[in-house]
Amino acid sequence: MQCVMSSDAEGYSEVEIADITTGASVLVEGIVVSSQGAKQKVELKVARLNVIGKSDPLAYPIQKKRASREFLRTTAHLRPRTNTFGAVTRVRNALAYATHKFFQENGFVWISSPIITASDCEGAGEQFCVTTLLSKTGDGTECSVSSIPTSVDGTIDWSQDFFGKPAFLTVSGQLNAESYATALSDVYTFGPTFRAENSNTSRHLAEFWMIEPELAFADLNDDMACATAYLQYVVNYVLQNCKEDMEFFDAWIEKGIINRLTDVVEKDFVQLTYSDAVEILCRAKKKFEFPVKWGLDLQSEHERYITEEVYAGQPVIIRDYPKEIKAFYMRLNDDGKTVAAMDLLVPHVGELIGGSQREERLELLESRLDELKLNKDSYWWYLDLRRFGSVPHAGFGLGFERLVQFATGMDNIRDAIPFPRTPGSAEF
Amino acid sequence: MQCVMSSDAEGYSEVEIADITTGASVLVEGIVVSSQGAKQKVELKVARLNVIGKSDPLAYPIQKKRASREFLRTTAHLRPRTNTFGAVTRVRNALAYATHKFFQENGFVWISSPIITASDCEGAGEQFCVTTLLSKTGDGTECSVSSIPTSVDGTIDWSQDFFGKPAFLTVSGQLNAESYATALSDVYTFGPTFRAENSNTSRHLAEFWMIEPELAFADLNDDMACATAYLQYVVNYVLQNCKEDMEFFDAWIEKGIINRLTDVVEKDFVQLTYSDAVEILCRAKKKFEFPVKWGLDLQSEHERYITEEVYAGQPVIIRDYPKEIKAFYMRLNDDGKTVAAMDLLVPHVGELIGGSQREERLELLESRLDELKLNKDSYWWYLDLRRFGSVPHAGFGLGFERLVQFATGMDNIRDAIPFPRTPGSAEF
Repeated sequence: MQCVMSSDAEGYSEVEIADITTGASVLVEGIVVSSQGAKQKVELKVARLNVIGKSDPLAYPIQKKRASREFLRTTAHLRPRTNTFGAVTRVRNALAYATHKFFQENGFVWISSPIITASDCEGAGEQFCVTTLLSKTGDGTECSVSSIPTSVDGTIDWSQDFFGKPAFLTVSGQLNAESYATALSDVYTFGPTFRAENSNTSRHLAEFWMIEPELAFADLNDDMACATAYLQYVVNYVLQNCKEDMEFFDAWIEKGIINRLTDVVEKDFVQLTYSDAVEILCRAKKKFEFPVKWGLDLQSEHERYITEEVYAGQPVIIRDYPKEIKAFYMRLNDDGKTVAAMDLLVPHVGELIGGSQREERLELLESRLDELKLNKDSYWWYLDLRRFGSVPHAGFGLGFERLVQFATGMDNIRDAIPFPRTPGSAEF
Repeated sequence: MQCVMSSDAEGYSEVEIADITTGASVLVEGIVVSSQGAKQKVELKVARLNVIGKSDPLAYPIQKKRASREFLRTTAHLRPRTNTFGAVTRVRNALAYATHKFFQENGFVWISSPIITASDCEGAGEQFCVTTLLSKTGDGTECSVSSIPTSVDGTIDWSQDFFGKPAFLTVSGQLNAESYATALSDVYTFGPTFRAENSNTSRHLAEFWMIEPELAFADLNDDMACATAYLQYVVNYVLQNCKEDMEFFDAWIEKGIINRLTDVVEKDFVQLTYSDAVEILCRAKKKFEFPVKWGLDLQSEHERYITEEVYAGQPVIIRDYPKEIKAFYMRLNDDGKTVAAMDLLVPHVGELIGGSQREERLELLESRLDELKLNKDSYWWYLDLRRFGSVPHAGFGLGFERLVQFATGMDNIRDAIPFPRTPGSAEF
């Protein structure tokens, strides 16, 4: 905000103009008046000014000239003071609150799914181990391997670990959410999830927040309707409540973003089956890098072609994927080949939401576990939900930082979360 | 709900009454009518009934007779189907939503503080290590110590770990929140935090959710006012929005809980200094187990005496504690002996909120780190917040599960979270 101070203002004589530098904090009181300049509508006529906290202009890490995003990640504790990250933070906040509002207004109950889990249900790969066996000593980094408890055969003696067995950071709260949905009806999770994936891309984080609603007495159509209503609600909320920040993004980050988001709120979402999507891709007069064939997963170039070229920026929901390329818990369709799964694709980020109707029939779920050579004993409690009072149910998952990217136009997912965690980087 | 089905209802002849057992799911349609029984006001006159999912009454783990809380923790996937845990879950949900509503309506921005951190600022003890060095192989539990990368001296080679150095689960998001508060003004966190503390008590969890607001341009009085307004808001929200569940708790879990909570909303909170509290305790005609003396920390027997006996159930805020028993970041008072810290005590759970004004003066913060022999280099970014545009700021932390206990009367904190994590226990 432009502040204009004349010599009759209180504190004028004490203020060292040289103290009002980038990064300093000041207390300004005055009257908001029409601005005489062209750059802003209003300005503050200063009645009183105090410098609260100085900032050495030579030492302050973020100089006035535009700092690169890469550099700003090394000063993640100061980057929220910039226009861009202030705006990202406020829009992220609005999306989070709109998420709670949407689900609460529709009768969903928020569940905190566990972060640490010793459950064997989740994929063993790409999980972080959580342990107290590698305790720090001395200067905080020395830990001798010889102090790790072992069994006679040299393997780690997990019984001496905090949880008495190997424990990991969760990759999804879905299975836990299902247990609450089959007790209380509609629920949702909103919490952090983790992948120990060694990918240094602009689309991956080791730590990210997920929203996972789970609807009881619901099928795939209900699930798609919920995903559509949710996305339109939160995007509309941001457009209505973050106008200044959205104008900032439209001007400086992605021209046309307000129109792109308005389309999402106002236009119908396209729905087509995986089989139709494959047919569209086969007919396309475009050369793709990856092959297109029924049974193969769609690559992001295919998804982009469909949402950006075929449907000109409309969100697209693709449903009924081959069972071989989807997770064990998805409900088998009557054709015996596809499952009741859906992916919601949007321009700019690609897949934003993935969901499915869950297999509620015990025998079918068990035979799917057998087919995939998964250990049924590990899934005892998940199978219990089908043994006792099973109900048709469905849900979806949404990576919250992808949503922030979608709503702000930020290119790199590391700029969509306050303190990003990636391979080699867990500072602050 | 009582459902009454007469022989003219659709599906009457197909329904096997034997299939409607505890744990089964049924679809019932009908008309709500005044009940003829005395136990309920209304009942459902069934027009149509279908059994959706059967439940073998002999196999269903939760039998009709009242199951113990200990037993129910072993069936955490089914316990939300009981009256008690259904009510706890709904009140927990209401408290979470009320938390967001309160802060959003007062202009606070939600910040997701990081879960994994390699920052050395946090206490090294009692933290869980997060690593990919102990990867699972084969059946998921075998990991040979010889496969852990080591340096020549036999210590672990952390450079080969996922983050390139030791990384831990966060114990608090406060320091991160401070960096956002000094950029954007008032913020709050609401996320999971962790303690690798080997305590098997009814008051401790290894994984719990914390709410940590941080107020910019604020002192301890602002902080206490915010804590008071927050607590009254969320308790009132539950009383207004969870009437049936609160009546259930009042009848079955803690007689008088509605009155106890109403007092919190309506009565003023007592404020007194630590020094006054010590004086009250010294004059008390009660024999305490632990000694009372200026400079010693208050034990829970002392806190209980003050809030339950001296102030008869009113919440009490004690402020200005000796600096020796409080954290390094708390602001030194002018007496040079105490810091601007506060604890909010409530009947039933004791300390519910702990907060402080933060030391915003660089030199004082640095000399406090020196006194405690903490490594200033580790705190470089935290000190930056004082180097560049420092502002008076204050905040507090609240353990969410303690709040759930306070609002429901549940004795054990393991029953205040869906899937509790404690030493030896991380199932589901």
